[in-house]
Amino acid sequence: MFGDHPHEECGVFGIYAPGEDVARLTFFGLYALQHRGQESAGIAVSDGKKVNAHKQMGLVSQAFDEQSLEPLKGHIGIGHTRYSTTGSSLIANAQPYTMESYLGPLALAHNGNLTNATDLRTMVLKRGVGLTSTSDSEVATMVLLGGEGPNWGDRIDHFMNCAEGAYCLTILTKDALYAVRDPLGLRPLCLGKLGDSGWVVASESCALSTIGADWVRDIEPGEAIMIDGDGPHTIARHPAPRSALCLFEYIYFARPDSMLQNQLIHSVRMELGRELARESSVNADVVMGVPDSAIPAAIGYAQESRLPYTEGLIKNRYIGRTFIQPDDRIRKQGVKLKFNPLTSTLAGKRVILVDDSIVRGNTSGPIVRLLREAGAAEVHVRVSSPPIRHPCFMGVDMATYPELIAHRMDVPEIQDYIQADSLAYLSYEGLLRATGRDPNSFCGACFTGKYPIPNFNPKARDEIKLVFEES
Amino acid sequence: MFGDHPHEECGVFGIYAPGEDVARLTFFGLYALQHRGQESAGIAVSDGKKVNAHKQMGLVSQAFDEQSLEPLKGHIGIGHTRYSTTGSSLIANAQPYTMESYLGPLALAHNGNLTNATDLRTMVLKRGVGLTSTSDSEVATMVLLGGEGPNWGDRIDHFMNCAEGAYCLTILTKDALYAVRDPLGLRPLCLGKLGDSGWVVASESCALSTIGADWVRDIEPGEAIMIDGDGPHTIARHPAPRSALCLFEYIYFARPDSMLQNQLIHSVRMELGRELARESSVNADVVMGVPDSAIPAAIGYAQESRLPYTEGLIKNRYIGRTFIQPDDRIRKQGVKLKFNPLTSTLAGKRVILVDDSIVRGNTSGPIVRLLREAGAAEVHVRVSSPPIRHPCFMGVDMATYPELIAHRMDVPEIQDYIQADSLAYLSYEGLLRATGRDPNSFCGACFTGKYPIPNFNPKARDEIKLVFEES
Amino acid sequence: MFGDHPHEECGVFGIYAPGEDVARLTFFGLYALQHRGQESAGIAVSDGKKVNAHKQMGLVSQAFDEQSLEPLKGHIGIGHTRYSTTGSSLIANAQPYTMESYLGPLALAHNGNLTNATDLRTMVLKRGVGLTSTSDSEVATMVLLGGEGPNWGDRIDHFMNCAEGAYCLTILTKDALYAVRDPLGLRPLCLGKLGDSGWVVASESCALSTIGADWVRDIEPGEAIMIDGDGPHTIARHPAPRSALCLFEYIYFARPDSMLQNQLIHSVRMELGRELARESSVNADVVMGVPDSAIPAAIGYAQESRLPYTEGLIKNRYIGRTFIQPDDRIRKQGVKLKFNPLTSTLAGKRVILVDDSIVRGNTSGPIVRLLREAGAAEVHVRVSSPPIRHPCFMGVDMATYPELIAHRMDVPEIQDYIQADSLAYLSYEGLLRATGRDPNSFCGACFTGKYPIPNFNPKARDEIKLVFEES
Amino acid sequence: MFGDHPHEECGVFGIYAPGEDVARLTFFGLYALQHRGQESAGIAVSDGKKVNAHKQMGLVSQAFDEQSLEPLKGHIGIGHTRYSTTGSSLIANAQPYTMESYLGPLALAHNGNLTNATDLRTMVLKRGVGLTSTSDSEVATMVLLGGEGPNWGDRIDHFMNCAEGAYCLTILTKDALYAVRDPLGLRPLCLGKLGDSGWVVASESCALSTIGADWVRDIEPGEAIMIDGDGPHTIARHPAPRSALCLFEYIYFARPDSMLQNQLIHSVRMELGRELARESSVNADVVMGVPDSAIPAAIGYAQESRLPYTEGLIKNRYIGRTFIQPDDRIRKQGVKLKFNPLTSTLAGKRVILVDDSIVRGNTSGPIVRLLREAGAAEVHVRVSSPPIRHPCFMGVDMATYPELIAHRMDVPEIQDYIQADSLAYLSYEGLLRATGRDPNSFCGACFTGKYPIPNFNPKARDEIKLVFEES
Repeated sequence: MFGDHPHEECGVFGIYAPGEDVARLTFFGLYALQHRGQESAGIAVSDGKKVNAHKQMGLVSQAFDEQSLEPLKGHIGIGHTRYSTTGSSLIANAQPYTMESYLGPLALAHNGNLTNATDLRTMVLKRGVGLTSTSDSEVATMVLLGGEGPNWGDRIDHFMNCAEGAYCLTILTKDALYAVRDPLGLRPLCLGKLGDSGWVVASESCALSTIGADWVRDIEPGEAIMIDGDGPHTIARHPAPRSALCLFEYIYFARPDSMLQNQLIHSVRMELGRELARESSVNADVVMGVPDSAIPAAIGYAQESRLPYTEGLIKNRYIGRTFIQPDDRIRKQGVKLKFNPLTSTLAGKRVILVDDSIVRGNTSGPIVRLLREAGAAEVHVRVSSPPIRHPCFMGVDMATYPELIAHRMDVPEIQDYIQADSLAYLSYEGLLRATGRDPNSFCGACFTGKYPIPNFNPKARDEIKLVFEES
Repeated sequence: MFGDHPHEECGVFGIYAPGEDVARLTFFGLYALQHRGQESAGIAVSDGKKVNAHKQMGLVSQAFDEQSLEPLKGHIGIGHTRYSTTGSSLIANAQPYTMESYLGPLALAHNGNLTNATDLRTMVLKRGVGLTSTSDSEVATMVLLGGEGPNWGDRIDHFMNCAEGAYCLTILTKDALYAVRDPLGLRPLCLGKLGDSGWVVASESCALSTIGADWVRDIEPGEAIMIDGDGPHTIARHPAPRSALCLFEYIYFARPDSMLQNQLIHSVRMELGRELARESSVNADVVMGVPDSAIPAAIGYAQESRLPYTEGLIKNRYIGRTFIQPDDRIRKQGVKLKFNPLTSTLAGKRVILVDDSIVRGNTSGPIVRLLREAGAAEVHVRVSSPPIRHPCFMGVDMATYPELIAHRMDVPEIQDYIQADSLAYLSYEGLLRATGRDPNSFCGACFTGKYPIPNFNPKARDEIKLVFEES
Repeated sequence: MFGDHPHEECGVFGIYAPGEDVARLTFFGLYALQHRGQESAGIAVSDGKKVNAHKQMGLVSQAFDEQSLEPLKGHIGIGHTRYSTTGSSLIANAQPYTMESYLGPLALAHNGNLTNATDLRTMVLKRGVGLTSTSDSEVATMVLLGGEGPNWGDRIDHFMNCAEGAYCLTILTKDALYAVRDPLGLRPLCLGKLGDSGWVVASESCALSTIGADWVRDIEPGEAIMIDGDGPHTIARHPAPRSALCLFEYIYFARPDSMLQNQLIHSVRMELGRELARESSVNADVVMGVPDSAIPAAIGYAQESRLPYTEGLIKNRYIGRTFIQPDDRIRKQGVKLKFNPLTSTLAGKRVILVDDSIVRGNTSGPIVRLLREAGAAEVHVRVSSPPIRHPCFMGVDMATYPELIAHRMDVPEIQDYIQADSLAYLSYEGLLRATGRDPNSFCGACFTGKYPIPNFNPKARDEIKLVFEES
Repeated sequence: MFGDHPHEECGVFGIYAPGEDVARLTFFGLYALQHRGQESAGIAVSDGKKVNAHKQMGLVSQAFDEQSLEPLKGHIGIGHTRYSTTGSSLIANAQPYTMESYLGPLALAHNGNLTNATDLRTMVLKRGVGLTSTSDSEVATMVLLGGEGPNWGDRIDHFMNCAEGAYCLTILTKDALYAVRDPLGLRPLCLGKLGDSGWVVASESCALSTIGADWVRDIEPGEAIMIDGDGPHTIARHPAPRSALCLFEYIYFARPDSMLQNQLIHSVRMELGRELARESSVNADVVMGVPDSAIPAAIGYAQESRLPYTEGLIKNRYIGRTFIQPDDRIRKQGVKLKFNPLTSTLAGKRVILVDDSIVRGNTSGPIVRLLREAGAAEVHVRVSSPPIRHPCFMGVDMATYPELIAHRMDVPEIQDYIQADSLAYLSYEGLLRATGRDPNSFCGACFTGKYPIPNFNPKARDEIKLVFEES
């Protein structure tokens, strides 16, 4: 209700582990990926003969109980957790997609967004396929099924030749687990080892450590692997000239305890704070962060600036999706439903407030006001990422051009709008520096407008029209 | 739990009626077709721009409330009610199937069974289509979508060229309603008129009268019609050399108040009883029927034989699907859970018990015993149809060869098995005579073993294997 | 939606049967009593130490599955099935009421209506008891708990001294089963034996035969029995000067296969038809009944008048509570949603239409019209009970004075109103004669206005006001 | 699954505010009190004539939607949120209790625990009242209803004379709101003002600020107030010789942004950390807290010890009640499901780990081990409360004697058990000092064993036996 963040569109998981209760392990893996999507969850499992699946709306913990887990017997499994879009939440959109195909049963889980989905959709419809949703994941599945060649490897290869944009797939067949990452590596996907003979793939390493698997490596951009009794082996490589990992995984999406490109996310976020402190210091008494996501950057900022770190806002832990509309009185309370200021730590203080990003800009102003009302003498806002000036079309629900405050206003105007005593964003160079990685290996299109897809038309995606609806 | 009847596999409905609340009329139409299927119900509606649909498990009255009906706005509608098979009841199997296709949105409802479903399935899978069930209706939809030609008429034509077996389809597109009946006319489908400008199609005429529409005619075997603003017009004709309407519609399936081939079903059933009385009279005191379906034949038998008609068994009206297993004590009670005998009308009497059919033969014996225990001096069983010796593969859940008692035993053996004082079935000729229609226009394969499909292989259907399952 | 019958307000059941699965037997007992109430069902069971209970809204088959039955272990059980009033259906009103009391746990199921409920309610509230419903059954429970004496027998005696009106109770304590019938015996209650050492009580004998128990006798009016390891023994007798069994049990309520006062209900109903034929014969071609309840009387009428019995109306078996409102078009169809006429058996015929009762009179007219439209030349209505001129206050939801058509009109006016060619009701004397029992042992207050309760004030019941509501 | 905290047993709320949508305000008030109980939530509202209520299992946000809020019209409201005990979670235990009584409708919400519940229960049962749960709140309601005197004030007075132990009640009648706090003031309850003419009472002030009400004062120990059109007025005073506010409200229960005794909870917690640093300093590199509750104390400790504060554990935000049992592999992962260590901030560091309390001691050891595995060189555990050596009987689900680790072991043994390099608890004196309030105004029985109830028998509570159960 009061968040102002971009939204990730899913988490995927896959496991090949003879002798293990793979459905249960997939459950706990999805549990660790819950932050990547809360709309629905699903698991598909193969025992070598038959594929069984269960999907349901809601959190992973709500979607599964022992009864629904019970029929999911086997040694190969995949799972999916889906982000809740503002539109209609339908079980039809829940994944993994499970289908009978010419090569046998198939289950597929997808994180990302195909930028040529409209073209692929038309191609698939022309072939005489009926689609039940506007989801590009269903299209992806049908493209895969429509590929040539006698085995799944050929069809995956075909799919990678057709598809553009962001995709991390885990695919389950009767006999094997496949993991596919798009040529640009826009979304993360990593490989882990479980015990002696088990293998795991997941969007983030936190899902590996939760089930006791060890991180091995990232799946390479443009790489497709197959895992069977012989372990993982690369079956296709479609490398792009350069990779383009989404910078927001470092800034906000990934869990702080996940490893990405061999670095702990939490450490990078602290470094973002330190970099920010170096770039835009200010005289102040205390440093605080907007809970929970900006806390690491705030601690980093405090360390670098040698100012005391403190808590200034308490977040209501139980706030969640409520179906009750606030009336006028409550609406005036605004962000207070989510945050309460700590008067005793703020009164009379010059406060540095660290946030990780500003998307629409509708939350920052109320928080600044809240801190002032609680007695803060000055409020200096520091943002541990650059201004977001462009939408994302690669799997992140960011906002549209007119919604993005930094598309409409420059920094002094935003400072004015949110009534901060000062406002500074981290520079794009500072952001890249803080990652400690090759600056040419990222997608920063939301900051720079330079989309990593050649000849990309940002409008194409909107052309899919919903002509039927089921409830 | 204690029934011994063949089971119909669905009812279909369609309506084109500008200015009417077509979803509500479809609801009441399905309500009237409830006896053709109780597993699930669904409605799809088009307003010329968009198709909206709602499907749910359970009776029509359970599947819909005002809230679920509300979004179903439009002037064209189709509906489906599905028979509950003994296997898993899944929402995935509920109809109408609703899909986005190259020609726009489509909804399809199917009653029947394609005898070449396995071949069609392979054809569709080869084309790179993924299927989510083993249902031949999903295959039918994909065959339709994969047809050539620029419009729906062409594709329906193509479908009728590919499909073999029993099918009555109602099809909804954005702009029109289609109704299709297979060349043999195995299942019934009729056309009605609603007010000045509305048109209705339904499996049985009772659905027409329930909503105040007038019966116009049966859709011809092999005929496909399209209904739009210009009313109904035939768009394809694929007549078979002879038609083959299922005789069990007369014997048991259709509602007694439905019209079929311009005759009231109830009248035909009374005539079956009269014919039976003429063929196999016996000295007795009273005539009774097994409630509810055999009552008309019993009354006809009583009239013809000039014996008093009476009630001898009371049926528990509220018996329904229960999830509670009877224990041994209850199991011994057997048919008593469903039927209670009326001692005062039976005591000392020689009873003629009329039933409409015997499939497995597991109910007749217990009923005979029940009547004897209630004091009947003699029990003479008369069946208003011939012995069922062959399974059905055209949309009726009849039983398999080994399950059919008349496949394993001759009439004297069955008489012995059910411990009746005498047993007689209606002859096949008597059955045909009672219909009053051309004897060459029916399918009586379950009695004669002569299937109306050329080169028909009764085993083909069983080859579809379920290799994935979703819950 | 289209019924015009009085409504019963519950069925009760009780069982004491060491070694048996009493919860399962209670389930099947309630199943047989389903016609006495479809709103909710409940079962309470004691194993001698603890009482476990489960209650739920809906039909018996909906309220229980194996999971809910599983914890109900023990050798004593009671059950209740509740009638669905038009008002709010609340789980709070579901029975048995289960409570911890000073003498240990107690469960209570009630069929009937206390005519001094308002006084008892005030008495209970004064004592400092909080009530959660306006139900007289909750009041009855609290009156029972508030009685003096060291054991349940004393408290039941006390209750019978306080309570007025209709009540059949089955009561479960840790150690015993109790069954109580009011001094007038307004509602039925009978005792049966199950195997060697089990005992059963039930509102109707059909519940006994369903589970394989043998009918032993009716519980006497004013009798309370206790059943424990020593079998049943009478613990209290509060006989009224005369008994007053509700005549509508014979006419409509009880299942045709139940025994009451040692007679089969179905036989009495056929006799009502014969008596009616003797009282008011008419020249006609066929006799038919309104399905299902009037069929026995119609057959009796046909036998006595030597006219052929036939079916003229088909009832939609699946009609049930629907949440969908008919629109104008459907509303005009009226009773057609429930009944369809059989034109072929009616055309040109002079029809005698037998019904069992007319309450509000809103259904008879449409049915007469339906038969005429189907071609009937004449329609002569015969009712197998006298005109209902007074409401019931003893547990039957009959209607209020202004609603009762026979309170507002005399017979010729009603004949005119329903547009019958002739109309005749069974005389009160004929009704009593047909029962074959002592004419002074019945309550016929709805026909005569002579309520069997001394100094009875028909308005008292309405004074309970609902001042809180929970959802 | 992995928590080791005492558990609060409920939050209460009340509002009297003509012209406001009191149900909606109560909803948001309960929302702010969600941390005091997550099992069920309920609201009752009066409009001066009728009381309407809604209760449901689950979080406040799950228990209410616009549809369930809609009938709750009026100007007086109370609400309740209930703690989830490990035993059976039953809707029967959900509050407010709503009842019809001799003085009209009543709703009651209770936070606390009556120490003489067994005696009161017997008293109530003897009076002929039936109880439906073992809850002392139901007993409290019946004691209240059974009081003498013509009005609610008298009955509340009577109740306060009978009841012993902890109770904060909000009571709703048709015309007024009552708030009652036990003589010892064991649980908090405060009064707030809403706009010009509205009044609010709540367990904690965070519920006041959430809906925009201003904190006025705490309800005094032993005070009962009535709020009607004339505002709040004290109607009873039953002061104990000394008050006994539960110290755990400061340590753990209350939300950090709540005011208690005119102090911000967060400030007191930081002071607990500072006091702890003063009492038991140690050479170390960083200070971290167990998220989330121990963070304020950790920051206080860091400030006082002039050591850098850091995050060392990440808590899975989405962890919640799951129905899936971990298998052995997962179980070995233990606290990792809830916490993940941040290797980069821990590696090679001497870590001070601040926790707020240790109850059973089953979580501290695994966390210490987790930090070591993540590379911590030393782990020094500091607890911002004294050892818990005694159970609570005044409304906190603490644990039993044998479960309490500090009852079985002394501090060196616990240090050994959890394998910390050093372990220190805050002293009881230090705890009292940090509160800044009169040391004689608290209950610290769980630390000292000195229960504030005269002649208190800690065993009495366990004597209530559950002799019936409903599902």
